[in-house]
Amino acid sequence: MTDNTSATAPVSRTPLTLLGTGAMGTALARAWLAAGHPVTVWNRTPARADALAAEGAAVAASAAEAVAANRLVVACLLDDASLGEALGGADLTGRDLVNLTTGTPGQGRARAAWAAARGARFLDGGIMAVPPMIGDPESGGYVFYSGSRALFEEHRDTLAAPAGTRYVGDDPGFAALHDVALLSAMSGLFAGVVHAFALIRREDIAPRDFAPLLVSWLTAMAPAAHQTAEQLESGDYAKGVVSNLAMQSAGNATLLRTAEEQGVSAELLTPYMELMARRVADGHGDEDGAGMIDLLVRAATRD
Amino acid sequence: MTDNTSATAPVSRTPLTLLGTGAMGTALARAWLAAGHPVTVWNRTPARADALAAEGAAVAASAAEAVAANRLVVACLLDDASLGEALGGADLTGRDLVNLTTGTPGQGRARAAWAAARGARFLDGGIMAVPPMIGDPESGGYVFYSGSRALFEEHRDTLAAPAGTRYVGDDPGFAALHDVALLSAMSGLFAGVVHAFALIRREDIAPRDFAPLLVSWLTAMAPAAHQTAEQLESGDYAKGVVSNLAMQSAGNATLLRTAEEQGVSAELLTPYMELMARRVADGHGDEDGAGMIDLLVRAATRD
Repeated sequence: MTDNTSATAPVSRTPLTLLGTGAMGTALARAWLAAGHPVTVWNRTPARADALAAEGAAVAASAAEAVAANRLVVACLLDDASLGEALGGADLTGRDLVNLTTGTPGQGRARAAWAAARGARFLDGGIMAVPPMIGDPESGGYVFYSGSRALFEEHRDTLAAPAGTRYVGDDPGFAALHDVALLSAMSGLFAGVVHAFALIRREDIAPRDFAPLLVSWLTAMAPAAHQTAEQLESGDYAKGVVSNLAMQSAGNATLLRTAEEQGVSAELLTPYMELMARRVADGHGDEDGAGMIDLLVRAATRD
Repeated sequence: MTDNTSATAPVSRTPLTLLGTGAMGTALARAWLAAGHPVTVWNRTPARADALAAEGAAVAASAAEAVAANRLVVACLLDDASLGEALGGADLTGRDLVNLTTGTPGQGRARAAWAAARGARFLDGGIMAVPPMIGDPESGGYVFYSGSRALFEEHRDTLAAPAGTRYVGDDPGFAALHDVALLSAMSGLFAGVVHAFALIRREDIAPRDFAPLLVSWLTAMAPAAHQTAEQLESGDYAKGVVSNLAMQSAGNATLLRTAEEQGVSAELLTPYMELMARRVADGHGDEDGAGMIDLLVRAATRD
């Protein structure tokens, strides 16, 4: 009376190979298996692929064998060097290589040239998610992609199974650049959060009561980046400024004095304050922070 | 036929004195005038009060005279020293002094004791808004208040005219502490934003296209502060950790290498990375960032 196997016509999903079954690779493989894609996996330490084998993945004995199994090959390894080692003996001719290994823009560009020389199309990716967010459309996680637009378009639906997709250009370095830029901004955000909690740490203020104030404030302030972008686009760094650098820089004295009163090292804040003071000293006190961006780029150039 | 003056019964609003008519003081005075409060103003440079006089404010010839005019006295001066100078010759007996002058928690506490010795109730405030946000209920701007709860309760409606109110405790230093903590966190946020824009500055990536990605990402990451608060409350800094400090610290190498590739000084990020590396070296690589907070407090204590 019941025959589940013939109840609906099977939908044919693109088979793919996944190299690397660490926490992220395993989460990716599970998302593709759940979406009905045949998945072949390989991991340098074979035992780490056992769980996926039990869930329906085919396990290849070598990276070369895994690459031979499918045209679409996704790599999610420890680092760029691991990718080079894993694929050293593989025939990439005619393959579509999607590299989700964390790396720099330069590594993405070099790897794209390397793949092209081996006859493969190449797409680099930067994952803006932690493993628990993979396969959960509600999580907001997504992946920046850059490189071969043709590859991206052809495999768009497959790539969308584990997380959202954002194609940011055919420069194969752009996915990593976007990824790293956002993570770098997050480091600044978290440094600010750490300093703020340190200031109240010895007071009779519950972190649980303070956190909502902090989160609301930072959420309200983050959109200031739109104005910074407009200033960079126009070249007019004093455009729409309400609290200019001279005023902000003067206000920093209160921030430093408060840190001292509260017994908190100001080490996380001082480089930003010093950069601001340099910009003011250069005669740009009437501007907003956009000019500090150029100073940061120039500062590195001088080295 | 028309007699606007007698159309409605006049509502009696609390009269108040405002010391200091800089950009913020002027915005505050306008909000109170617009709400129907009789306002007496004083400014060290009298000409800066001319515009408010034309808008209906009474202008006092001295700070002492301004203080004598009303029981409720609001100060919004350059700094705490200016407040001491302005009120040096004034009789504060029976006055309700609300200090919106920017200062440190220590200055707020000292000023509260100073006011008490002069027979005045005292409330300190920290304004979380720029002048254009004052008097606009839609702006989201608000003021932290701490000190005399009786003063705050009695004048609550009057204080709510220019901006929202948040009473954070009877410790007169808490308003400034909350203010400075949020501004310090914002410095971190902006430092991250500056670094991120610097990374893309020389690339063919429009700041206007990049900004929405940055803002969305930072808005999504800011609530991580709630987890930090929970970790501080529980004392379990490894609670709920997905990406621990050891993993984050290893990932910092990619951030630094990318900055180098892009010709951007990493000076805004390195102190946070170094603090993280110290925490990992201390054997806490399995934790999240909460422990860095204690390290920051301890670091200052060692000095």
